[in-house]
Amino acid sequence: MPRYSDLDTPTRILLGPGPSMVHPRVLRAMAQPLVGHLDPQFINLMNEVQDLLRYVFQTKNPLTIPVSGTGSAGMEAALCNFIEPGDSVLVGVNGYFGERLCEIAGRYGAEVRRLERPWGQVFDPAEVEAALKQKPAKIVALVHAETSTGARQPLEGVADIVHRHGGLFLVDCVTSLGGVPLKVDEWDIDIAYSGTQKCLSCPPGLAPLTVGERGRAALHARRTKVANWYLDLTMIEAYWGSTRTYHHTAPISMNYALREALRIVDEEGLEKRWERHANNAREMWEGLEALGLKLVVPVAHRLPSLTTVSVPDGVDEGAVRRRLLDEYDVEIAGGLGAFKGKAWRIGLMGYSSRRENIIVLLGALQRLLGR
Amino acid sequence: MPRYSDLDTPTRILLGPGPSMVHPRVLRAMAQPLVGHLDPQFINLMNEVQDLLRYVFQTKNPLTIPVSGTGSAGMEAALCNFIEPGDSVLVGVNGYFGERLCEIAGRYGAEVRRLERPWGQVFDPAEVEAALKQKPAKIVALVHAETSTGARQPLEGVADIVHRHGGLFLVDCVTSLGGVPLKVDEWDIDIAYSGTQKCLSCPPGLAPLTVGERGRAALHARRTKVANWYLDLTMIEAYWGSTRTYHHTAPISMNYALREALRIVDEEGLEKRWERHANNAREMWEGLEALGLKLVVPVAHRLPSLTTVSVPDGVDEGAVRRRLLDEYDVEIAGGLGAFKGKAWRIGLMGYSSRRENIIVLLGALQRLLGR
Repeated sequence: MPRYSDLDTPTRILLGPGPSMVHPRVLRAMAQPLVGHLDPQFINLMNEVQDLLRYVFQTKNPLTIPVSGTGSAGMEAALCNFIEPGDSVLVGVNGYFGERLCEIAGRYGAEVRRLERPWGQVFDPAEVEAALKQKPAKIVALVHAETSTGARQPLEGVADIVHRHGGLFLVDCVTSLGGVPLKVDEWDIDIAYSGTQKCLSCPPGLAPLTVGERGRAALHARRTKVANWYLDLTMIEAYWGSTRTYHHTAPISMNYALREALRIVDEEGLEKRWERHANNAREMWEGLEALGLKLVVPVAHRLPSLTTVSVPDGVDEGAVRRRLLDEYDVEIAGGLGAFKGKAWRIGLMGYSSRRENIIVLLGALQRLLGR
Repeated sequence: MPRYSDLDTPTRILLGPGPSMVHPRVLRAMAQPLVGHLDPQFINLMNEVQDLLRYVFQTKNPLTIPVSGTGSAGMEAALCNFIEPGDSVLVGVNGYFGERLCEIAGRYGAEVRRLERPWGQVFDPAEVEAALKQKPAKIVALVHAETSTGARQPLEGVADIVHRHGGLFLVDCVTSLGGVPLKVDEWDIDIAYSGTQKCLSCPPGLAPLTVGERGRAALHARRTKVANWYLDLTMIEAYWGSTRTYHHTAPISMNYALREALRIVDEEGLEKRWERHANNAREMWEGLEALGLKLVVPVAHRLPSLTTVSVPDGVDEGAVRRRLLDEYDVEIAGGLGAFKGKAWRIGLMGYSSRRENIIVLLGALQRLLGR
């Protein structure tokens, strides 16, 4: 049996698509000794986490919880609880996570219909309407912030169309929640999920999820049991609700961390936080363009939290990333899927969205690219 | 928007069915700044976690990983990857978690057959053999350590029977891994899962899982996709394997914590750790009996990690638990299911299994029960 050394991790500037950097206060909260998951003190903390999540989602939905898994578990929870075999699901596919929505919906027996756009583009509400006129869908799913492309999908007005055709409006907010304007109640979104390791700047491990009254009605009108036990909201709702019926053991320390991360959002104020993300992104975009780099997504639909940059001709994109990491401790990411080898993905999320980080990134890129 | 106070949790002596107390070294590891989940440093850490998990499982299985969810997600992963609709699954049901195995297997379309025993009892290998002679099963599932009853299921010799009838042997080790002798390879177990918050004394949030060659062959021989995307081992195997293909973002900080918790197990040595759990449990049992309390499970099948105690006539079991918590900061648990209101459950797991904790518990119980 080999011996293992002390944990000794480097101090990275995390400017990839997540995890983002975690505030020292959140790290300290996570290091608090544990109480039991049915301890009155933890029950109280669960209530606070739910309140704070409602604030960042801008919703009054009672069913607002952190799913005990990463953002992908949040996506699966958002689908599996509302799909019964044969249900029609319309998915906007303009990137990797739209593809994943299709893949997961298919596993639950949905009849998946794809609304497609090239990677990096966004959908017009009229396209959703046209698709629903052709054939209604029980669920219409769009990705608010496509982490694979950096495109921001406008959501205002979509819910009306979906609801007029009798559907539920489901939104992936993994890379927007806490960093990009999102108003679940005002925009009448029925189901929304996210991850903790993006604009909330909490370590990965929980997936904020909110379900409105239409969604809850659909959940309770199911003819069949939810096909996924761990993510079954009919049971999780009771665990996080007034009865606290045991379902699984909540990840205590991760909830400590999430509470602290959300408290930091609350202290900053959501509007101010959105503004900070926007301002810092603009500063970085200008700096990247000043280096002669091209940004993939037009500014009108560009996410402040994640920017895709075209890799210049003749540049080995992997080598640049490796040198950024090895020589400057800066992490950025390569492209996924259609953008593999063609784009870098640079995140400015939560505690990572700071001017000093932008300066380091731009300075390092300038040297590495010889600009 | 209300303001939220600093996180200020009480210091509990956790003697319930989990979470157990977490070693300060593990808490410190969890508070380390994060690296990205595809950072070479994290990839290296993943390898170490897998090595260490193989040690505690006593296995050489390449497919040995922490599932990115709590123990319940581990149970679901252990079932959903190997079940296709119509498959026959034989489950030993002698407590709450046997029931849950049936419930989850059923959701994946298994034809579930129950081998039943009253709560607190264990199965004889001959019973398994008789059931399989009647009708073979693709999977035979037993709970090694029933957290709801405190019974320890003997496992030696069962695998031979299961394999002779062409089945896979699946074992729930949630409350045994790291505290009670368990030898996956020697006992020829095909699929085993656990949780981190029991005898490993790591916070809840990950589920150690190991799958042997028979299990892997069954996984790769599936005719249908795994019905659960988040827990799909065909993809997770690639993420934790040599290609590191992105599936979901691993919970970084939880893996820091697990590595440190496993390193502590390694330093203590597994055999010594099993011995410590056994010795401390014996000391507590004697103390409880000296108070005139009756233990539910006969000593031959009693778990060292979890003890069920009959609530004496005329005692309000909930009031005793509340006073233990409020006046002594000691957490124990009530009974589940058939044992609700009739038994207390006392855990001595991992870092909680210390003599000083036993002294506090016995002293507090003596006062509260007026013995």
